[in-house]
Order: sequence, then C-alpha cells, then structure tokens
Amino acid sequence: MNKYDPNRVIFFDTTLRDGEQSPGATMNLSEKIRIAQSLESLGVDIIEAGFAASSPGDFEAVATVAREVEKVRVCSLARTVISDIDRAAEALKEAKHSRIHVFVATSPLHMEHKLNKTPEQVLKMIETGVSHAAACTDDVEFSCEDASRSDLDFMVEACRIAVACGAKTLNIPDTVGYAQPEEYAARIAYLKERIDPKVIISVHVHNDLGLAVANTLAAFRAGARQAEVTLCGIGERAGNAALEELAMALTVRKNYYQLNHGIKTEQIYPAARILSRIIGQPLARNKPIVGANAFAHESGIHQAGVLKNPETYEIMTPASIGLPSNAIVMGKHSGRNAVKAKLESMGYALEPEQVDAVLSAVKSLADKKKDIFDEDLEALVFEEIYRIPDKYALVHLGVQSSDTGLPPTAVLVLDIDGKRVEHAGFGVGPVDAVFQAIAAVTGHKPGLEQYSVNAITGGTDALGEVTVRLTENGRSAVGRGSHPDVINASARAYLNALNRLAKMEK
Amino acid sequence: MNKYDPNRVIFFDTTLRDGEQSPGATMNLSEKIRIAQSLESLGVDIIEAGFAASSPGDFEAVATVAREVEKVRVCSLARTVISDIDRAAEALKEAKHSRIHVFVATSPLHMEHKLNKTPEQVLKMIETGVSHAAACTDDVEFSCEDASRSDLDFMVEACRIAVACGAKTLNIPDTVGYAQPEEYAARIAYLKERIDPKVIISVHVHNDLGLAVANTLAAFRAGARQAEVTLCGIGERAGNAALEELAMALTVRKNYYQLNHGIKTEQIYPAARILSRIIGQPLARNKPIVGANAFAHESGIHQAGVLKNPETYEIMTPASIGLPSNAIVMGKHSGRNAVKAKLESMGYALEPEQVDAVLSAVKSLADKKKDIFDEDLEALVFEEIYRIPDKYALVHLGVQSSDTGLPPTAVLVLDIDGKRVEHAGFGVGPVDAVFQAIAAVTGHKPGLEQYSVNAITGGTDALGEVTVRLTENGRSAVGRGSHPDVINASARAYLNALNRLAKMEK
Repeated sequence: MNKYDPNRVIFFDTTLRDGEQSPGATMNLSEKIRIAQSLESLGVDIIEAGFAASSPGDFEAVATVAREVEKVRVCSLARTVISDIDRAAEALKEAKHSRIHVFVATSPLHMEHKLNKTPEQVLKMIETGVSHAAACTDDVEFSCEDASRSDLDFMVEACRIAVACGAKTLNIPDTVGYAQPEEYAARIAYLKERIDPKVIISVHVHNDLGLAVANTLAAFRAGARQAEVTLCGIGERAGNAALEELAMALTVRKNYYQLNHGIKTEQIYPAARILSRIIGQPLARNKPIVGANAFAHESGIHQAGVLKNPETYEIMTPASIGLPSNAIVMGKHSGRNAVKAKLESMGYALEPEQVDAVLSAVKSLADKKKDIFDEDLEALVFEEIYRIPDKYALVHLGVQSSDTGLPPTAVLVLDIDGKRVEHAGFGVGPVDAVFQAIAAVTGHKPGLEQYSVNAITGGTDALGEVTVRLTENGRSAVGRGSHPDVINASARAYLNALNRLAKMEK
Repeated sequence: MNKYDPNRVIFFDTTLRDGEQSPGATMNLSEKIRIAQSLESLGVDIIEAGFAASSPGDFEAVATVAREVEKVRVCSLARTVISDIDRAAEALKEAKHSRIHVFVATSPLHMEHKLNKTPEQVLKMIETGVSHAAACTDDVEFSCEDASRSDLDFMVEACRIAVACGAKTLNIPDTVGYAQPEEYAARIAYLKERIDPKVIISVHVHNDLGLAVANTLAAFRAGARQAEVTLCGIGERAGNAALEELAMALTVRKNYYQLNHGIKTEQIYPAARILSRIIGQPLARNKPIVGANAFAHESGIHQAGVLKNPETYEIMTPASIGLPSNAIVMGKHSGRNAVKAKLESMGYALEPEQVDAVLSAVKSLADKKKDIFDEDLEALVFEEIYRIPDKYALVHLGVQSSDTGLPPTAVLVLDIDGKRVEHAGFGVGPVDAVFQAIAAVTGHKPGLEQYSVNAITGGTDALGEVTVRLTENGRSAVGRGSHPDVINASARAYLNALNRLAKMEK
C-alpha cells in the first residue's frame, strides 16, 4: 500500500475473524484459505485472519493464511494479555507482512461490568500489551473496544498511551452499532486533532441500526483512513460494514469523497458468491451491490427509462462489480480449456487435476441437464474440490414415498472407512427417512439445525443445492451437497456435515 | 397523526407500492390486505397501496386497502397525467383518509432522456397535475423524481409551483440511491429555507450504496418530517429505507434525534415475518433488527459480557421489537383457546372458522411431529387460510427414486375443477418427476424460476416449506407449500403457483 497518499484509504478485512464469529458462518481451514485468496484478488490491504489465542483452529488459520498469501498483510487479534500477543506473534511468524491487533475495552460499562477493572488499570494494560506487541512486530494496531460509548478524553488518553508504546494504527470501534454518523465523525475529528498526524485512525463499525457504511464514510470525512470491513457485511449480530458497499460508494462517488482505494471492484461479485456458498447463506435479493435484484428493474417506468438510457436508473454498471452478463456457459461438448478459462473468470485458480475433476463432473451433469450455468459450475467446484476427505461416502440410494398408508422409506448403501454397509428405514418423508437411515447406520445422533434447498439455476432439471447444519456434542458443522435429484443432494449434504463433525472429533 | 408536534416524524409506508414493485415480491390482493393490516398494527401514518392507473390489479389493491383499513391514511401514486389522477381518486373514494401522490422527474437526465420534455414543459405538467389532484382531495403529495440529481434551484422552483397548486407534502427522492448523507441533508435544508414552513418535506431513498437509513436520518436532522419506507427495505433494486431500522434508530437514539414517531416497535418482528413469508424471501441472518443473528452472540468474549450485563453488547432488547422469547408452543393436546391466543400474539386475528381450520391442521401435524413451534403454526396459517380457491388440488402422490438405472418416477392423482385425473412420469429426480407430471396433466408449460426449501424449525421431522416461482406467458406467480414430506410440499407449492397463474388468466 502506498503510504504517501494522504487520500488513500486502507481496507482492513475481518471476514475471517469478526465475520467468521457470526452464528452460522463457521469455516474450516481450506475454506478460510479460499476466502483469503479471494480477498487478495480483491485487493484488500490487510486480512485479519483470526484471534490466534482464542482456539487452536484460529491459530492454525492465522498461521496458514500468513503462509499462503503473497502481497497482503496478515493480522491476528489479541487481548492486551502477554500470552495472547505471544500466540499472535507465533502464528504470524511466516507472514511476509504482519500486524498484531491489540484491544481492550475503554467504556465505563465494559470496564466495570465485563473487565472488572478501574480506568487506571485499563491504561496500564494498554501500556503493557502494546509495548509487548511492538517488541514482537513493527506494525501494531490498538483498538478501544466500545469506543463509541467511551468517555471522549479517556479514549484519547488511551490512544496516546498506545501510540507512545508503539501503535501505528488506532481503531475506534462502534462495537455495539450505537453510533450515528455525525456524532461518530465528531469523535474521530476530536481524536485526529489530538494525535500524531502520522498515526492512521481506523474505524470498525457494526450494523445494528443499518448505519455501518454511513458511519465509516462519515469517519473518512473526519480523517479516518482505515476501515474494518467484511464481505457481504457478515459479523457479530447484524454484522460489520460491507466491503462491497463501502468500495462502491467510494468509487461511484469519487467526485464527492476524493479518496483512493485498492479494491478491484470487478472482483466483488465472484468473492461475494464464494463467501455465500461457503457459509451456506444465500444473499438477500435486495442486498446492495451483490443481491439478485441490485441491477433488476421491475416497474414499467423504470424499464422504459433504462432502455432509453441506463443512467436514468443505474448509478453503476453490472460489469463494474464483476456480474457476468452471459450466464450460459457449458454443455456436453465443452472442452478442458473452456472449463479452465471459465473457472478462472469466476475467480477459481485450480490445479490441473482439479480442472480435470470438474470437467468430468460437467460431462456427467450434461447428460442430465441441457444448459450448465455459472452457478452449476460453481456448485460442481464445491462438490468436487472443496470437500474434505470422507469417512462416510454414499454408494447407493433409493427412496419410496406415497400417501397410501405405507410410510416413506429409504434404502441406502454407504462406504464407512472403506467398508460397505446397508440400511433401510422410515421417516415422515423421504428426506427424513434418508437422514434417519444415515444416522442409524453411522451411529450419530446429530440435531438438525438447518435444512435448506435452493435450485441453483432455473428449470425443473436444475441442480438442487442442499445445505444442512448438524449439531452434536456441542459442535456444529455445515454440510452441502448438490445433485439434480434433491433427495440425493440431501443425502450428500448430510454426509458432508457428518464428515466434518467426524473430522472435528479427531 | 398529531399535526401540532414539530418533532413528530411521519412514517409513509410504500411496501405495497415500491416494495411490491421489486422482482420476486409480487403479492395478490389478499396478501396485500394482510400486509396493510400489519402496517396498521405497526402504527404507520400512511400506506401507499399502489399506483392505481398502472394496472387493474393495482387499482383493486388501492380500493380494497382504502376500504379495509380504519385509522391509517391510504395513498395512490399517480403521474402528473389527468387520467392517472382520476384513477387514483376513483380508487381512493371509499377511504376514510386519503392522499394522492403525484410525481414527475426533475433531473436533466430524466427530463431529456426519459420524458423527452423541456424543463418548462415539466413545470407546466406539475401545475396541471397537482392542481387537478388538489381538486380531487385535500391531501396532495408531490415528488420530484430523481431529485438528488436535479438542479437545486430548478427543484425548488418545481416544489414552489406544487405548493402553490395545493401540495401539502413535498417529497425529495433519491431515486437511484446516489446521495450521500451530508449532501442530501444540505439539499433538504436548502429547500426547507425556501418553502412555507407548514409544508411537510418528505424523503424517499434507495439503498443502492447501503445508505438509505443514514440518508433518511440526515434529512430528518435537516428538517424533513416524513420518511417513505418499506418493511425489511424491499423495493426497486437494493430497495428502500427499512421501516424497522429507521424506527429503531429513532427509538434507541431518542436522546440524540429528539424526534417522536408512532411506530409500535414491538409489532416489528411479527410484521417482518409475515412479509418474508408472503413474498417467499427469507430474511438474511445478518439483517439488522429482524435477522436471525440480530440478537445472537457467538464469540466467547461477547457471551461472557452479555451474561454479566446485557447492555455490554445489546443496545436494544429482543422484546422491544416483538421477538418471541419462547418458541415452543403447541402439541397434540393444545386446545382451541391456546391456538387462538397464540395466533393473536403473533399478529393473526382470524375468524372463528379460520381458527378451527388451523386447529385441525395443528392436530394432524402433531401426529407426525412432537413439538410445534411458532414458525410451524405460521406455516399452517398460510397453508390453511391464505390460499386462493384451487382449480388444481392434490389428491394422492407417490414417488420412487433409486440409482440402480431406473429413472425417478412420480405418480399422482389430481382434482381439476372437480374431476379426478391420474398421471405417472419420469424426471431427473423425484421433485422434477412430480413437476413434470403436474405440468403434463394440467397442460401448463411454465418456466421454473425459483425453487427453494426451508425446514421451518429444527429436527428431521420439521415442516418443509417449499417456495416456487413459475412463469408462463409473461406472468409470474409464487407458490408455497408446507408438509413434513418435502416432495409433498413441493407438489403443493407447484400447484399453488399454477392456481395463481390460472386465476390471473381469468
């Protein structure tokens, strides 16, 4: 990143930390690497890859992302506690560029009720923590948690101590999504006047009242130069500021903000799609920028206007966010190079043998389905490439269901660690019968937290993509499966989730 | 509404007009009435029920809502064209309180490329249209379409003419979602200084850059006193300002805005749920206020904080938006009064025979499923009460599917206008086989635009709710079906959509 442009804003992405922390967005290691690659293609400046001290999984995620990415800076969150900072430094040791992000709460409510500390004790914690982090790395960020509800002068005092101890970035989070744009901007301006101008002021806002992007933009106008964002705005509760909304506001209204950034906006749509698929959460149709309706015009008056001149109702083009204009891609006769080129245009850089696996899946799908769309191809990539090694694999499946009095039945053959097992059973419907049969034969008794199906593309022969979330012994895993037959896709999704649960147990 | 409080802001809801205009949110008449009842319970001041001249369906919607609601003012949109205004007045004639909302575009881009008119011609259109509307009703609102991209002084001139001709409310829309909070506020303040202080300034903003709520709040601070909003922010493209986000920002930050409003916030959650179900679009988990994660805390630090003091991470309580705290409601032995009371607490005021129909569905579901949750009950209400009279009804259904070489098959018996017909056929999976069999036997060849399934509550015996969207001859209809067997629910949803298409043809 160019440090000499005073109008350059820094995109600090926390999809893998605050985003992954949101209910239902848990990712495994290979998924986190996939997201980190998307973020690097998008041109974010910094990736917060986790909170290394919080769990072995987070430590491994930070360490692996640090190793895998090339240009982007990698960051770990840490409390002001020495052992937290040491874990962060350890996880980051193979990073080409690293940052340690130290935080402690500075609001009266958090200091008294959560930390049980006096303000003086908190200042001392900042001194100890930031000094230790600065001894571990040359790039330390300090956050006043719940800054927007902190006493203004106490917050400034905390920031001054952090800077004196080596912090180069000061983050002023609106942890609970309470701030309003003008008051938040005033808080940033107040700090800006009282701090070394070389220090970067950062904002990290939550969207509880729908104001995350507005608060970030207001803070930029008041002098902040870093924004902590997530893809699609995922994160604790209502989430964080959405990377894509912030980047497009700065791009579409460049004339107004006069700020530069490094986001390659045409990578936005592929990155959002990949995230949505990984966490198994569809994008709302009216999600700004990346929702299905963002570029759709329904009313006659709007349609007529757009036909005469798109600018009448469009302030940005679909191409500017990387929305593919032509959705039909593949058929029975598509070759290896066509599949490879298409995958690359969608943001998937695969190894040759991975391309071969997808190609063979395309051929097999093309026997059942005439047109293969981008979304179908994406589903096949997830089905063929981003699977974990299977303990349980589906060999055969049959179901019967009628309303003549016989209960719905399923019969299945599974491969469990290389051994064939068979089972038949009943349920309230064929999907239930399949799930109960799998549970019986594998000896699991998971709770089913979520079951959803989406036809990936139009047509009755569309690939059905099933997402299930299973919970067992306090662990939770998302499983996905796609197949033109919804029952078969359901069985695959259920087994995929069981495989993930089984892997966690090791 | 109290006209004497200068700090009272008016909620003008356009869920039924701009919201219904968004792709995938089409509603039939009984659904519109249901939404209008929700909006009245919520305490909105004005309902824009449609654009009477745009179609017979919109006319009927405005007329019916005008007749059905009691306290709330009902509005129809109209161009400055005389025939539009006459249709609006005709549709509103049975309303207890009515408003005609006249609009014309005032931006150079829209005037030149869309309207093909000179600025002088547009001013003349305003004079003619607003004067005619004022002759039809004593409450006229005038909108400068694309106001945020209009020349400031031309916009003021347009507004002055509208006021001189009888407009009492001036709406300044950010039609394309282009405005930024401070510049939009400056535009509102500029107009406010130049217009009769008794005239209400309104804002209607779009969320293309994620700033709809922020722009509305900024406009309030600059003197606007009406906001045009929709439930869950549905509307053209990325939608409008979300009613629930705006109402909660004003409520949670009452100390900051010092503005009063009439929204009963504890009705927000039931109203959002009903809308989501009617349009068949699930709420994103991270949707502010009403998403599943809005009150969830995942990280250990947040959970520990909330246990010590909820205010550490919650700026509002779940109860303040009407989120039910106890989800399990019904079982085999639930009686009529329990069902009735529960339905009322969820916002459903049903007739006695409707309660009986739901009760009998509850008993029948309880045979298959142990616990019946709020969401299950809601699905039964939609299944039993809000259906349209069926041309096609499902009598029997059976499916078979296996991977042994035989294609998946479906056999079904339908009742078509009282006559039994049978059919058996194949598909790529059992759902496809069912859909193809139904299409063959009914003689329809609709396109399947959407197919999605959500298990309504946890457990493998959960009710599956299927949503399909079918398109035929340029018409589109959403169908829903719920049943513990996903295949059966799919057949019901498909038939429900066909019944709606059949009704449109008449």
